[in-house]
Amino acid sequence: MTSPFVPGTSVHVEGRPGGPLAGLTFAAKDLFDVAGHVTGGGNPDWARQNPVPSRHAWAVQALLDAGATLTAKTITDEVSLGILGENAFEGTPLNPAAPGHVPGGSSSGSASAVAQGLCDTSLGTDTGGSVRVPASFCGLYGIRPTHGRLDLTGMMPQAPSSDTAGWFARDAATFARVSAVLLQEAIGPAVPDRLVIATDAFGFADPATAEALEPLLDRLKRLVPEWREEVMAPQGLSTWSRAQRTLQPVEAWQTFRPWVERDNPRFAFGVARGLVLASMTPESELGWAALVRREARGRLRHLLPPGTILAMPTTPFPAPKAGLPLPDLDGIRAAINMLCAHGGLAGHPQVSIPGATVDGRPIGLSLLAARGADALLVRTALALEKS
Amino acid sequence: MTSPFVPGTSVHVEGRPGGPLAGLTFAAKDLFDVAGHVTGGGNPDWARQNPVPSRHAWAVQALLDAGATLTAKTITDEVSLGILGENAFEGTPLNPAAPGHVPGGSSSGSASAVAQGLCDTSLGTDTGGSVRVPASFCGLYGIRPTHGRLDLTGMMPQAPSSDTAGWFARDAATFARVSAVLLQEAIGPAVPDRLVIATDAFGFADPATAEALEPLLDRLKRLVPEWREEVMAPQGLSTWSRAQRTLQPVEAWQTFRPWVERDNPRFAFGVARGLVLASMTPESELGWAALVRREARGRLRHLLPPGTILAMPTTPFPAPKAGLPLPDLDGIRAAINMLCAHGGLAGHPQVSIPGATVDGRPIGLSLLAARGADALLVRTALALEKS
Repeated sequence: MTSPFVPGTSVHVEGRPGGPLAGLTFAAKDLFDVAGHVTGGGNPDWARQNPVPSRHAWAVQALLDAGATLTAKTITDEVSLGILGENAFEGTPLNPAAPGHVPGGSSSGSASAVAQGLCDTSLGTDTGGSVRVPASFCGLYGIRPTHGRLDLTGMMPQAPSSDTAGWFARDAATFARVSAVLLQEAIGPAVPDRLVIATDAFGFADPATAEALEPLLDRLKRLVPEWREEVMAPQGLSTWSRAQRTLQPVEAWQTFRPWVERDNPRFAFGVARGLVLASMTPESELGWAALVRREARGRLRHLLPPGTILAMPTTPFPAPKAGLPLPDLDGIRAAINMLCAHGGLAGHPQVSIPGATVDGRPIGLSLLAARGADALLVRTALALEKS
Repeated sequence: MTSPFVPGTSVHVEGRPGGPLAGLTFAAKDLFDVAGHVTGGGNPDWARQNPVPSRHAWAVQALLDAGATLTAKTITDEVSLGILGENAFEGTPLNPAAPGHVPGGSSSGSASAVAQGLCDTSLGTDTGGSVRVPASFCGLYGIRPTHGRLDLTGMMPQAPSSDTAGWFARDAATFARVSAVLLQEAIGPAVPDRLVIATDAFGFADPATAEALEPLLDRLKRLVPEWREEVMAPQGLSTWSRAQRTLQPVEAWQTFRPWVERDNPRFAFGVARGLVLASMTPESELGWAALVRREARGRLRHLLPPGTILAMPTTPFPAPKAGLPLPDLDGIRAAINMLCAHGGLAGHPQVSIPGATVDGRPIGLSLLAARGADALLVRTALALEKS
């Protein structure tokens, strides 16, 4: 368990005085450009071949302009290819809410730093769950915004059709302040009209996790005029997951292939294996996965009209132990993906809300809404904290 | 281009006074145990999980007992999985005979150290060409002994059915002195009765390489009473190569799998990819490859009765440039394997002899003999140097 900050890096950029985030500090995942510092991407061979950026990433600049002060760059899983937060080169950031357990990734250091109180908020990225999972494991508010909503200039890509920039906070009020800035939209007072409880997602979660989320869910039911239970993925979460686990790695391979072939970079075995398998994906699988994605988009559009939100467990279980062997990790990753794949597939906004624990370890409740209804989710998180 | 020695390691063990190798210095590839020093295997995550050995490897002890002094441990390709000598963690040892070009691997540092005159001889290992290739690229004498002849205690395994321990020297006299000790057999005066020139191997080599070896081959023809031209692999060198490139990686995966699954170690992408592909080899391919191996063994037994030697280019070309991109490396490795696969398949002894160059870069001539006739090859190398 190491510091959440990128080893050997010291960053400090004062926010503009007097903005809405004045007095807040933030850290940025090492996939975001910070002028004058190499964007390391969690891999020494990625860092080495990269020029030092001369401009801040859009999200970093937006927070600075709003008055927040940048105080650190944080550890990420290698080139964002990981979901547990164990980086073989830079270490595993502490999960202060569950010591000895992983923080979740790939925005591991960003979640760890906020959870430890080392900064007020932090930037992460979420392609396949990289904000949602560490938010759940570390007991934080975290958002994966609507795909395509934020300007991703200066953020290292992985799989552009699924990539998003997100952020973390310990309390709903800070989360809302930061969200208003990055969503460029005021967080009003309205709450949702309807709540859908995703029975398949709760059914897939460990029983202890589903049970632990019930009090939070009960408060949510009281907050929203109507609620009903419904299956989220009639085709099967396993079908959605398989499709996303086909599409995303192939896109990541397209992103990284020129670098990999030129530099033969070092990776943890499990990361390299993912790229190798992606490079061997048959066209027929890709074609099938693209059809499933279209089907999933249709399903979520139908399920989530404006004013409706959906509730599900963010992860099927709390943070697993750190340092497990690869075959165990493979099973854990696959199970996590079952509850995350819809994000990359359909691009709806999702907020993970803390407040429950299993055996003392945090577990998040996730809310989804219509594309573009990010602010409604933040608003609901605020209302739920006060309820 | 870095030092051939393992970074951060300092080793010195005096040889026993008065032995046949008194006055000689040697280095050992970092796959050989040296008491009191971690056997690093060219990979930081291998080094980390290994206990410090309390005994020297058999070959190290044999050289010390014969009076040679151990002065260094040398860089190897990661866990011996490489043929070019580029180690992403420890660097690429200098090839003093062809600066800017690779030294060959995986016994890269052992060859480089001898070629630079930093020691008189050195220990390497050869599973798929790891002594023969750097001997050819660096312009050294190098031997892959008969498989099973040397005691491999204390040598890190890769693919045991192909693994051997070999050695390098700059001149035939030193090579013969060291060989007598490690083969535990005097190097007498006799030369071979018959020479077979492998037309398929010369045909596969670059024309400039085949041509550069002709003067050496002519001297060899004058040394041996009879010679004839013949195809070495009637099934095709490509068939033998395919079989060995199936068998050896699968065996290496069996060797390393427990470690890889437990520790998820870091590798250069190309190394990890080899293990991933090996893990996916169908049983039917393995079965076919085992039949080809049996056929190759029969062929070489027939071609190389006692007293007969076979001549072929050690490598199809001299050392390629260092730092080439992965697709280029893949093609180069495949071509090298065409002239190396017989070693791991059939286990006959092979000596690579320097003395030719292409565009100023060394290229070796290889001699094979019957299993157990290692000394005959050393003897021939001596006679050829004097011819």
